[in-house]
Amino acid sequence: MAASTFPLKDELDIVIPTIRNLDFLEMWRPFFQPYHLIIVQDGDPSRNIKVPDGFDYELYNRNDINKILGPKASCISFKDSACRCFGYMVSKKKYIFTIDDDCFVAKDPTGKDIDALRQHISNLLNPSTPYFFNTLYDPFTDGADFVRGYPFSLREGVPTAVSHGLWLNIPDYDAPTQLVKPRERNTRYVEAVMTIPKGILFPMCGMNLAFDRSLIGPAMYFGLMGDGQPIGRYDDMWAGWCVKVICDHLGFGIKTGLPYIWHSKASNPFVNLKKEYKGIFWQEEMIPFFQDAVLPKECTTVQSCYKELAKQVKDKLGKIDPYFVKLADAMVTWIDAWDELNPTAKAPNSK
Amino acid sequence: MAASTFPLKDELDIVIPTIRNLDFLEMWRPFFQPYHLIIVQDGDPSRNIKVPDGFDYELYNRNDINKILGPKASCISFKDSACRCFGYMVSKKKYIFTIDDDCFVAKDPTGKDIDALRQHISNLLNPSTPYFFNTLYDPFTDGADFVRGYPFSLREGVPTAVSHGLWLNIPDYDAPTQLVKPRERNTRYVEAVMTIPKGILFPMCGMNLAFDRSLIGPAMYFGLMGDGQPIGRYDDMWAGWCVKVICDHLGFGIKTGLPYIWHSKASNPFVNLKKEYKGIFWQEEMIPFFQDAVLPKECTTVQSCYKELAKQVKDKLGKIDPYFVKLADAMVTWIDAWDELNPTAKAPNSK
Repeated sequence: MAASTFPLKDELDIVIPTIRNLDFLEMWRPFFQPYHLIIVQDGDPSRNIKVPDGFDYELYNRNDINKILGPKASCISFKDSACRCFGYMVSKKKYIFTIDDDCFVAKDPTGKDIDALRQHISNLLNPSTPYFFNTLYDPFTDGADFVRGYPFSLREGVPTAVSHGLWLNIPDYDAPTQLVKPRERNTRYVEAVMTIPKGILFPMCGMNLAFDRSLIGPAMYFGLMGDGQPIGRYDDMWAGWCVKVICDHLGFGIKTGLPYIWHSKASNPFVNLKKEYKGIFWQEEMIPFFQDAVLPKECTTVQSCYKELAKQVKDKLGKIDPYFVKLADAMVTWIDAWDELNPTAKAPNSK
Repeated sequence: MAASTFPLKDELDIVIPTIRNLDFLEMWRPFFQPYHLIIVQDGDPSRNIKVPDGFDYELYNRNDINKILGPKASCISFKDSACRCFGYMVSKKKYIFTIDDDCFVAKDPTGKDIDALRQHISNLLNPSTPYFFNTLYDPFTDGADFVRGYPFSLREGVPTAVSHGLWLNIPDYDAPTQLVKPRERNTRYVEAVMTIPKGILFPMCGMNLAFDRSLIGPAMYFGLMGDGQPIGRYDDMWAGWCVKVICDHLGFGIKTGLPYIWHSKASNPFVNLKKEYKGIFWQEEMIPFFQDAVLPKECTTVQSCYKELAKQVKDKLGKIDPYFVKLADAMVTWIDAWDELNPTAKAPNSK
């Protein structure tokens, strides 16, 4: 990659759900200041978010969302960081990086600050290899390649739609694991990036995530979570399962591994348990649903895939709880709102 | 794991194909001396292999193989390290570790010698998780666990049948990659172990490999390679593809990652190209064959799975070249020989 086109200053937005932590932007200043920020404020719109000088940003609160989307604003969660997906919709850039405000700059094993964005961009600009496993990890990393026995016809790879980064310090555990292992910290810096193989689901965490909006944007819906909904903390998971099924169908890749951020604080496991409670049961039926989901050949755009998936959600998961009927409707509303705000968008797989 | 039962001294054999390098065993002495070695000598049986004092070993040359297997010896390759699989057959232990004689003790990033065997045993004693991807790698590693969104019903995992270790210094590249990148060295120590997901094939390298013989032994056939055969350097790959299909069918797991060994010397890329030449074409048909292979429910033992696979190889790959008909026959002979030498062996999945 030529240094002049890297790191894609004009092609990437950083989306942040509500900044409660004032140190957050100061710490990221050397890395984020060249980029445009989209801050989506959850909860009370009268609360003020202080953005330090020097940042180029736009901020949306609930009033803005209601004004822009009208009745379709019902698909955007309230009082929950799931509202961040509104930022994906209003962005006009090719790439999105989203990060939580309790995530700070991590250090690599040599003590150097990790430029998470740079690694995400490198992950997204290089192909993925979902059809065959490479034992030396990402073959497009410097000093690595495809190993003996890797079919040559598969070495071109496929476009990468998602780059899923990891977390040092506080791992992304569910409430039961937090309760059982309150002192566990992630201290292992694993220097690897890998493609998640085709046909396999993964838990996509929204804390440190980048994606190619032009390829997969309309599927990055974070669902109905938090206030007024029966679950929380499944926003990113839901998006990840939908995105994976659609990427597998359309022939896009998803990478996980580097970059790390420093996750500074564990959320309250008791509060989390309350939010996750129903999800813990429901995921036992959601996972088989997504594992078995098949999209028809006629679905050649992310939008048509997503609407088809919404239909299947209503048909199959609607039996578990009325929540899924509401969610399926919101999925359709989301796509309608997306298309309204992005009217001239080309079909995402017609690069 | 209790220290007293670790590292399973009486339950593991080390299988080595011909030792040409005299330093090899000296370097591994602190780690290998407690174990029993099975050395399988390829090529000229009159050549003497010098094993240093203090090692407990048995050595088989071609005359021994012919004497023990009679006409069935035809399934064991001659003048090729693929002959090592004879050692898997004559072993009576639960676990096998196999390693090449140009692989030395590697150092971890702190400079400490890596006890490869200890890591392999830990990989094999802990479950695998082939049905869902865990983004923090092996959840059974110290300091790691399943992340948020990992279904609880899948956290018990499945028995681990194979532990595939990696290589620092000389990576396991095919001849074309060796020719294009003669100076590339693997210097990246990735501190991770992971399960290769269900339904995905991988290139299994025999350089640094351990497996549970009681679970998957009869599928670890290294084929017909080298002298008198049209290909070489696909022995471990062939075994890996068969093993993966059968593990997926029987519900066993395969792990890859740690431990590293130090691979000291690159083999000659011109010689390798000659050996691999046909394989480079054939693998483009072998991979789809194994990707699509389905074993019937009635196949509940490794032996019955393997014979069924041999039948499919003959039917479907036999069209490519008569070699695959010969190979399919040898696969059946291998199972017959295995059962003859292991008459009281229980069905491998009846733990």
